[in-house]
Amino acid sequence: MAQIKPSLAKGTRDFSPEEMERRNYIFRVIKKVFKKYGYQEIQTPSFENLSTLTGKYGEEGDKLIFKILNSGDFISKISPEKYAASTAKSLTPLLSEKALRYDLTVPFARYVVMHQNEINLPFKRFQMQPVWRADRPQRGRYREFYQCDVDVIGSESLINEAEFILIYHESLANLGLTDFHIKINNRKILAGFSEIIGKPHLLIDLTVAIDKLDKIGVEGVIKEMEEKGFNAQDISIIRPIIDLTGTNQSKIETLKKVLAHSEIGKLGIQELETVLRYAHKLNRLVDSFIEVDITLARGLNYYTGSIFEVKTNEANIGSIGGGGRYDDLTGMFGLKGLTGVGISFGADRIYDVLLELNLFPENTNRSTEVLITNFDIKAEDLALDILQLIRSKGFAAEFYPTTTKLKKQLAYADNKMIPFVILLGQEELETGLVTLRNMKSGEQQKLSKQDLLTFLIKNN
Amino acid sequence: MAQIKPSLAKGTRDFSPEEMERRNYIFRVIKKVFKKYGYQEIQTPSFENLSTLTGKYGEEGDKLIFKILNSGDFISKISPEKYAASTAKSLTPLLSEKALRYDLTVPFARYVVMHQNEINLPFKRFQMQPVWRADRPQRGRYREFYQCDVDVIGSESLINEAEFILIYHESLANLGLTDFHIKINNRKILAGFSEIIGKPHLLIDLTVAIDKLDKIGVEGVIKEMEEKGFNAQDISIIRPIIDLTGTNQSKIETLKKVLAHSEIGKLGIQELETVLRYAHKLNRLVDSFIEVDITLARGLNYYTGSIFEVKTNEANIGSIGGGGRYDDLTGMFGLKGLTGVGISFGADRIYDVLLELNLFPENTNRSTEVLITNFDIKAEDLALDILQLIRSKGFAAEFYPTTTKLKKQLAYADNKMIPFVILLGQEELETGLVTLRNMKSGEQQKLSKQDLLTFLIKNN
Repeated sequence: MAQIKPSLAKGTRDFSPEEMERRNYIFRVIKKVFKKYGYQEIQTPSFENLSTLTGKYGEEGDKLIFKILNSGDFISKISPEKYAASTAKSLTPLLSEKALRYDLTVPFARYVVMHQNEINLPFKRFQMQPVWRADRPQRGRYREFYQCDVDVIGSESLINEAEFILIYHESLANLGLTDFHIKINNRKILAGFSEIIGKPHLLIDLTVAIDKLDKIGVEGVIKEMEEKGFNAQDISIIRPIIDLTGTNQSKIETLKKVLAHSEIGKLGIQELETVLRYAHKLNRLVDSFIEVDITLARGLNYYTGSIFEVKTNEANIGSIGGGGRYDDLTGMFGLKGLTGVGISFGADRIYDVLLELNLFPENTNRSTEVLITNFDIKAEDLALDILQLIRSKGFAAEFYPTTTKLKKQLAYADNKMIPFVILLGQEELETGLVTLRNMKSGEQQKLSKQDLLTFLIKNN
Repeated sequence: MAQIKPSLAKGTRDFSPEEMERRNYIFRVIKKVFKKYGYQEIQTPSFENLSTLTGKYGEEGDKLIFKILNSGDFISKISPEKYAASTAKSLTPLLSEKALRYDLTVPFARYVVMHQNEINLPFKRFQMQPVWRADRPQRGRYREFYQCDVDVIGSESLINEAEFILIYHESLANLGLTDFHIKINNRKILAGFSEIIGKPHLLIDLTVAIDKLDKIGVEGVIKEMEEKGFNAQDISIIRPIIDLTGTNQSKIETLKKVLAHSEIGKLGIQELETVLRYAHKLNRLVDSFIEVDITLARGLNYYTGSIFEVKTNEANIGSIGGGGRYDDLTGMFGLKGLTGVGISFGADRIYDVLLELNLFPENTNRSTEVLITNFDIKAEDLALDILQLIRSKGFAAEFYPTTTKLKKQLAYADNKMIPFVILLGQEELETGLVTLRNMKSGEQQKLSKQDLLTFLIKNN
């Protein structure tokens, strides 16, 4: 077997024990909130039939889907003549019938349609699974990353939207974040704007332009609007709304005036107000975390009602979550008329924020609570006794498996962040007392077995 | 967008909320035991460079690896002439540079070699991730399935082997299994046999033949041995060992006689005895679960010492776990001299066993604990109050999001296995008492908010 210097595939990551503990901590905290609000977990396979995925993410998206090469004699179906006349694009469906999940949304739509007879509507589900994209890797962008989606399908009630605001608030607060904003807007309000300027056909262009506000600034947005066919008068109507500041209530009052003659716009305002009212009723503490942001557009064109985005002010990292209401997710698979609303959490970014702000609980770093050193073959029996005694109380414990220098064994405990080490040698064998070392303070004390257990229970 | 009837890719599965709860229960129980014994979780990416995986699983294995088609203009590097002269096999490395994980072992070896400077030896890690194989799907065999591996690398101590026996015992007992056997053998004992019959070069053939005992019976094994070049005298030595019955101790006594003149055989017996002695010392209750099985060979040729396999007698399902000691796992990536030992759990099979034996705890079926019905818009304020009150005590609760027939709302609760439903209508609004319905018994009682919380806390 030829020896090769091992490397990771481009854009992928290993997760060390420490990173796994931290990642699991984030998933655990978020999952607990999802469940508290009645959401249930599902999983879909890592790969889908290629036909399930293609055509759902636009032409650019299709290119970024990882395709799986057919097994077996895949070239027997492609004659050399056919090959010579093909392009990579025309050849792909002949070489590949399966592809890796690109997001969790399309497989979820497929799931709902396939399982529609078992599913209990409204169907409240969450999913935390990796997705894969053949993007050019760069800092913070990977070819394999986790998505963390929570959606309810089959319910029009705006209580769902309000509960998603609470879910964001509770999850992020439980993770230790204190200064963040849950931005909210409604696509019907944006539609209202394109209606009052008489250009409803330019709604997508309008939202795409406004969506870039953070990146290109007001002047950039205006320039793009001009390029897309909005005239000076249109812009004079839109501009004050882009510049809008003040409280949520004052923004809504302004909107009511501007959109007084747009039915869809008024409906959007009404939905927005209802969501805010429900959120307040459920937990008035969330009020100050909500920011009505008329410039929030979200690139994805399938949103039809409320849209959300979450930003933290404690780190310069972009959005850590987003979502919205969509009216026809399952239509692509032939099941019409199901409305849905959902949000997602950017787990990788949240990880970076918690790390930067030092918000991971100290114990996410450690796993084993006690290491028993291996000093002497004569002490082995006692060591194994104590080992199982400690484990029987539910503590994670290890016996260093070979006799070696104490220094090396202590270094092992240090590296693994093990807080307590039991030293067993001749003296301990004679007295029956064990020496317990606190690895952080370096303090040592001699304890009977019973006192040792009492100590561990008290110090956990 | 063309509508397509959605389907799953062949050999893959969706997991419903109920299945996810059950799967998570199994992973949680096993994970807790791993951690108690000092093992830490890592994860590796779903795909690796193709060169990392090829050549590690034999020619058959290589064919079953799912390859990922290169992105972009992958055919520009393959001229029509070259294509015409190619086979699927010779073309694959040109079309694909990445492949899906086939098992957790090879990526783990790659991980250890790449992270050797950060790793703390002995390195005790576990991994629970899906793997993918382009096998022909059949009942119980999927193209995507989870492996659940726990290994320690860098420690020769046989205490590790003994602890793996305890890990098997504790995990399976915690899952509710009572009648299972942890079979143990040692590859050095098998090597001893091929030594005493003077055919050490036939060790692999011997183990491959013996490994099939369960499938083809003693006569089948003997027939295969004859075909591989073992003569009547060889077989007269081997046969009594294959037929060996009795206690572990009596088997070991017989082995000591048969292998008295084989150094490697004697070493194997000594290792086996040491493992049994350590296991007994750690927990004498495991003794009756251990079965010395000289015919246990395990197909994989990289095992060099102890080998394990776990079978349950409560269901007819084959092995639910296996593993062993290997002396040179990381050698394939250029890091020599690291010994390792590990075991794995067959999570899918354990799932089937628990389902067949009805061993899943009742509460793995449910998630939401209380549903508040939506009867009347006038009751909405009270409903939202009670909803958040219940959630604030940590219970999972839902408010049915729209007003609809009570029957439909109760069916929703039933389908979702929600144990308690709160009914809110005109009467409840007037009296301030809520009606709590026990969905299992159908009993209803009227309670104040405070009594409701007391009741829920008591009945959880």
